[in-house]
Amino acid sequence: MTAQAVEEVRLARAYLMRVAEPPAFALHAFVNVVGALAAAERVRRGDVPQLVANESEARRHVDLAEEDLAAAEKVGGRLLMPEDPEWPAWQLLCLGPPTDRGLRGAGTPLGLWVRGTAEVGEVFDRAVSVIGARAATGYGDLVASEIGYALGNAGMTVVSGAAYGIDGAAHRGALKAGGQTVAVLGCGIDIPYPAGHSGLLEAVAASGLVISEYPPGTNPARHRFLVRNRLIAALSSATVVVEAGVRSGARNTATTAAALGKVVLAVPGPITSAMSVGCHDLLRTGAATLAGSVGEILEAVGPVGEHLRTEGRSARRSTDGLADQALRVHEALRREEGCAAEEVAVDSGVPLDRVRALLPELELTGHVERGEDGWRQAKGGEHGR
Amino acid sequence: MTAQAVEEVRLARAYLMRVAEPPAFALHAFVNVVGALAAAERVRRGDVPQLVANESEARRHVDLAEEDLAAAEKVGGRLLMPEDPEWPAWQLLCLGPPTDRGLRGAGTPLGLWVRGTAEVGEVFDRAVSVIGARAATGYGDLVASEIGYALGNAGMTVVSGAAYGIDGAAHRGALKAGGQTVAVLGCGIDIPYPAGHSGLLEAVAASGLVISEYPPGTNPARHRFLVRNRLIAALSSATVVVEAGVRSGARNTATTAAALGKVVLAVPGPITSAMSVGCHDLLRTGAATLAGSVGEILEAVGPVGEHLRTEGRSARRSTDGLADQALRVHEALRREEGCAAEEVAVDSGVPLDRVRALLPELELTGHVERGEDGWRQAKGGEHGR
Repeated sequence: MTAQAVEEVRLARAYLMRVAEPPAFALHAFVNVVGALAAAERVRRGDVPQLVANESEARRHVDLAEEDLAAAEKVGGRLLMPEDPEWPAWQLLCLGPPTDRGLRGAGTPLGLWVRGTAEVGEVFDRAVSVIGARAATGYGDLVASEIGYALGNAGMTVVSGAAYGIDGAAHRGALKAGGQTVAVLGCGIDIPYPAGHSGLLEAVAASGLVISEYPPGTNPARHRFLVRNRLIAALSSATVVVEAGVRSGARNTATTAAALGKVVLAVPGPITSAMSVGCHDLLRTGAATLAGSVGEILEAVGPVGEHLRTEGRSARRSTDGLADQALRVHEALRREEGCAAEEVAVDSGVPLDRVRALLPELELTGHVERGEDGWRQAKGGEHGR
Repeated sequence: MTAQAVEEVRLARAYLMRVAEPPAFALHAFVNVVGALAAAERVRRGDVPQLVANESEARRHVDLAEEDLAAAEKVGGRLLMPEDPEWPAWQLLCLGPPTDRGLRGAGTPLGLWVRGTAEVGEVFDRAVSVIGARAATGYGDLVASEIGYALGNAGMTVVSGAAYGIDGAAHRGALKAGGQTVAVLGCGIDIPYPAGHSGLLEAVAASGLVISEYPPGTNPARHRFLVRNRLIAALSSATVVVEAGVRSGARNTATTAAALGKVVLAVPGPITSAMSVGCHDLLRTGAATLAGSVGEILEAVGPVGEHLRTEGRSARRSTDGLADQALRVHEALRREEGCAAEEVAVDSGVPLDRVRALLPELELTGHVERGEDGWRQAKGGEHGR
């Protein structure tokens, strides 16, 4: 295709993306069959199958393709489409061909409005979505920010939805680490939504990407966030839910991600927190794996073996590895005063000759000490449950 | 058996329980084969197989049976044994015959020193153990106390280990609800351990039970707590771990409970808390089921159908149940100003005739209102992710 031909296709797709509300299953299938150029021409004329007409009839007279491309350019954006070499085809493959599975059904987008400096062809190679409640708690904000930071630090891309709460904290964490982060919106890429995140969206675009399948100027709406969620899930190889209430878009994204065969992790929280109920439900029903630390997330999402968790957490007690009788002999001793082997035998229930054999062994390993008043525990033991 | 014969068996068992350190696999097997009376006599004489000698040799000259029974009686206690009608045989059945599976291996006790007023034959019919870290956080204490209260309130017995932290909070919660609670100790039933819980132990004994397989006067020791844990697991039909560190006795009890085929639940907490790491590990590895609320615990442990969780948590949105197009039409409307069906069609992407059909339907269901300036959303909608 000549460069001009490509731009004609882009205009056609820009027109089609405004004509029908995503996910437009029939229109998408139609484009796949007749091609974007012919599809645009026939939609304009109203010369389409009934199902496509149902999706496109209301807006087919609205052709703002050039205006939309200009509006995107005005904010440093562009329309990316399957005909472009950097189109994230591999990631979107999981969405499959459009089939009418209802509002939350899968389906690849006709194109993606993108804004930002990151290489679209690379940014999704190692991407993890970090999502959660808008009404996050301080705990959720902290954890999301730390996860975002750790992923960014590990060279992974943090994908989220730019909402208040968890989404914003995840983006910020990634930015703080100098990592790449991508915001997928349920409105136009030129709409600073939510308003309080206009600065954050600028920062995301400055080093990462702001993405949407909605034309510039499109206002946010609840059903658009639900449709958008499939893109967050598809563009990441794993999804981490940090906090989620009983009803939440994050759970919708997690369910979609699981349906797409992605790794789904959920961060637990206090059961006294309403903002962790959604995560706990995902964990209890087995829809998500528990993410108990940032290290566990890296281990779950990173290339095999790259982020193997260190086992340092499981610090060993000095008496670990002692066999039953040795442990009992050790326990029968006191630290404050020495005692004779005979006393140890009675107190521990270990035969006296075994006690006499074990005590010097335990002295060699540093577990017990011999003094003038007999045997006693060496420093460093531990007592309790 | 005559009453006198029974008391002779009791003396024999009291002697044997001091002779060998539990779990005394060989001695236990020996008692099963020759009976408690003959076993005691032969142990005293040293006329036993080598394995039994290994377990009993060091203390076989120590016969404090009468003193132990007197010491127990002094604190209102007694020695319960398999020959007694109220012996909790059914619950202890899961421990099976003694097999040498190491320190944490199963094995029924030769007897149980009990102190308190509860009916041993009934108190374990509906028992749940609530266990966890000694170094509990405020969160853990709160949750353990609430679980203890809820179980006590539901007529279930709360079993725990009387340790500081979670154990103590669980006992206290049960007591507060006027419920029955049982403390299983890793020392004698006359030892106020931990010292700060002597009042709590009195309160537990006053309405419930304090239990131990260790003779009166036995000091606490680490290996005894590990051995004790199998009794906590066996005497309960479910085990709830509230908080647990990386290394903890509570995890040991949970693992034992799972091995015994009991329901194991773990309460999640903040991943920033070291005291929840053990619970999260149990959940991640599938060793425990997530307990997200007191209601979920009651549902999991109660008789089938008795504590079905109410689904009230999952409050419905007013727009739930709206089909895709209806939802889009609803979203395209504003609350502040009315608009015409034509505008709605363009904004929602729904064909105009469908919009014209849907708006009156949505008016009937109370989702939209018709005013002088056109259609608008009714009060009560919600917007966002």
